[in-house]
Amino acid sequence: MGEFAPSRAAQRIVAATAEDGAVALTWDDGRTSRFHHLWLRDNCACAQCRHPQTRERTFELLDLPEELDPPRVELRPDGALRLLWPENGGWHESLFDPAWLRERDYTNRAADTESRRARPWGAEMQGAIPSVSYAELMESDAGLRRWLHALSEHGLALLSDGPTAEGSLLDVVGRVGWARETNFGHTFDVVSKPNPNNAAYTAIKLEPHVDLPNWQRPPDFQLLYCLENGATGGASILTDGFAVAEALQREDPEAFEVLATQPVDFRFQDEESDIRFRAPTIGRDADGALCEIRFNNWIRDALDVPPARMQAFYAAYRKFWTMLRDPHFMIRFTLGPGQMIAFDNLRVLHGRDAFDPNSGRRHLQGCYLDRDLVMSRLRVLERTTRLSESA
Amino acid sequence: MGEFAPSRAAQRIVAATAEDGAVALTWDDGRTSRFHHLWLRDNCACAQCRHPQTRERTFELLDLPEELDPPRVELRPDGALRLLWPENGGWHESLFDPAWLRERDYTNRAADTESRRARPWGAEMQGAIPSVSYAELMESDAGLRRWLHALSEHGLALLSDGPTAEGSLLDVVGRVGWARETNFGHTFDVVSKPNPNNAAYTAIKLEPHVDLPNWQRPPDFQLLYCLENGATGGASILTDGFAVAEALQREDPEAFEVLATQPVDFRFQDEESDIRFRAPTIGRDADGALCEIRFNNWIRDALDVPPARMQAFYAAYRKFWTMLRDPHFMIRFTLGPGQMIAFDNLRVLHGRDAFDPNSGRRHLQGCYLDRDLVMSRLRVLERTTRLSESA
Repeated sequence: MGEFAPSRAAQRIVAATAEDGAVALTWDDGRTSRFHHLWLRDNCACAQCRHPQTRERTFELLDLPEELDPPRVELRPDGALRLLWPENGGWHESLFDPAWLRERDYTNRAADTESRRARPWGAEMQGAIPSVSYAELMESDAGLRRWLHALSEHGLALLSDGPTAEGSLLDVVGRVGWARETNFGHTFDVVSKPNPNNAAYTAIKLEPHVDLPNWQRPPDFQLLYCLENGATGGASILTDGFAVAEALQREDPEAFEVLATQPVDFRFQDEESDIRFRAPTIGRDADGALCEIRFNNWIRDALDVPPARMQAFYAAYRKFWTMLRDPHFMIRFTLGPGQMIAFDNLRVLHGRDAFDPNSGRRHLQGCYLDRDLVMSRLRVLERTTRLSESA
Repeated sequence: MGEFAPSRAAQRIVAATAEDGAVALTWDDGRTSRFHHLWLRDNCACAQCRHPQTRERTFELLDLPEELDPPRVELRPDGALRLLWPENGGWHESLFDPAWLRERDYTNRAADTESRRARPWGAEMQGAIPSVSYAELMESDAGLRRWLHALSEHGLALLSDGPTAEGSLLDVVGRVGWARETNFGHTFDVVSKPNPNNAAYTAIKLEPHVDLPNWQRPPDFQLLYCLENGATGGASILTDGFAVAEALQREDPEAFEVLATQPVDFRFQDEESDIRFRAPTIGRDADGALCEIRFNNWIRDALDVPPARMQAFYAAYRKFWTMLRDPHFMIRFTLGPGQMIAFDNLRVLHGRDAFDPNSGRRHLQGCYLDRDLVMSRLRVLERTTRLSESA
């Protein structure tokens, strides 16, 4: 079917028969699979049904009757499954690679594996953050792949030994795609100066939070690149929100359900903008897997919750918040110049200890990156490179 | 509470008492409301609890016990609700504007109004597409507001009498924010030339579809600006997917449920990218309102659906597809030079009639725009401008 990625299955089909509405296959390891006629016809990969270059489906299901006549079924000497469909008084031929079919064997599958890639972590991640050097990431696909893999699986990755020139952040981004623009621009600066004369330069503790949950499409990944750090204190704090959500689900399933179903309003407004969105604190995708955490006390708007649920919501929210502050779920570290931390903004909550702004200058440069780009780049690299070590 | 938007409620509070866990209010129009103590304390807008400039909440609920002692309740002569909370041996004062409370009266509210703004349409929209001139949009806030309002409510808006210089599209975008970048760049060109020698210049009919449903975060709005159109045929076709989904829900609730719950994989891959996402055909938000349609036959991947659901899925999918092609739901028009159509990419499916590429040159320039930016700009304009006519 013209996959760009090498197929991984090595099993052969030993028998194939057309049954009622489906083709039944027996594999050489004893497994049996059934593929519906409609599914097979829908996925015909011949040059009439798929564009030879773009691989896009040009065949339209609506051109055929809902009940297909069963195909003639053959196994070719090279192992391919050959189907002949009676159409328009002749035969339409579909060929299927056994490896392609095996990978898509929906009769023997529980769930999509990639979406379950997330591996929750707690305080044991302290000192064990997957790390790649700036040179590895910039100069080798294997280095870039390790960094992307860590981001995808653990939701965080450290970059070390980088330059301290402004814009180094965007050199890293350029290896993946482009920075996601927001109302804060393409990049933003987290700066503190000695003797601050402005509230923007305060140095107070920041509670764990995600950035911009008031956007329908918040930034997926956040990159914070340290250019300078002479201040005392100000350790970065990260907490895996998925680990906390899973713990809450175990300890108090009702509280988890409240947070996973009750939407909450977030809002940021100033003279120029009024950006709002309403979504549950704990987001699950259509398969039920955790997919995002929206937690940010500063811009949570007044709750619009059914009265009968208000008490239960606040109780669940406080419980989750208390767990987010639990040191068992937390790692704490201080970025040095030339180091960059990247994390999944919708999974890993970030915060900061208070620091002494009079003790020295602290300058982090940040930006955001789309998940679609991160995952695409990783998949392309996985076609050809190997993960030289476990990230 | 420091809203930027003028508050709209005009009712007065005539009685206020602290009851068990909540403050009960009686209004001068006879309505009664209850606000939970926790909710009221959570939304205290004093300078200690909210940042005076940013309006962000700095008060942390976790600093208080879960069961609050009831406040002392007063109505001030100016109509404000005054609450005094026993805290730390003293009293913490919260003041609430009655208009602010009335707007957030969750005990008397069914649902958020803005998210239900979408007004479904069918073929009657033909010839009635909300239209704003280029000059109005560029030069007046009222014109821009009408255009944004139409996009938000109907999911489409026409721009007329614009220049035909390349980049005019981005001048329009600049009135709202910035173009959303994708793997097709900041803008893209839909060009056909007489005597095409390349498949990219084909002029075939395009089925109704949404762009990039293989992205987790597909583009929200699409803008197509016509610079030149001397070709015969090639009418643009638009169908309100929300109208079709609602009709399906009425006619065949089971088919609707299948499409609203069963995720489908989409995938685009080439040498440089592999962008995939898995989501239901019909998307609903956490409040159950329609929020997106993902339909694109070319890049729908092999279905990974539980075997027992496969037949039902294909039947529902075909039914929905057949309805999408129904002329009752469809409008058809031809863009002339200097005209631009903008539509909600995740609501309004777009297609095209075949055209004769040898009859003349056809050049549309396109780009994408974020919903967060569109809605924010509209909300800011609604603070000060009036909708001079129904869009």
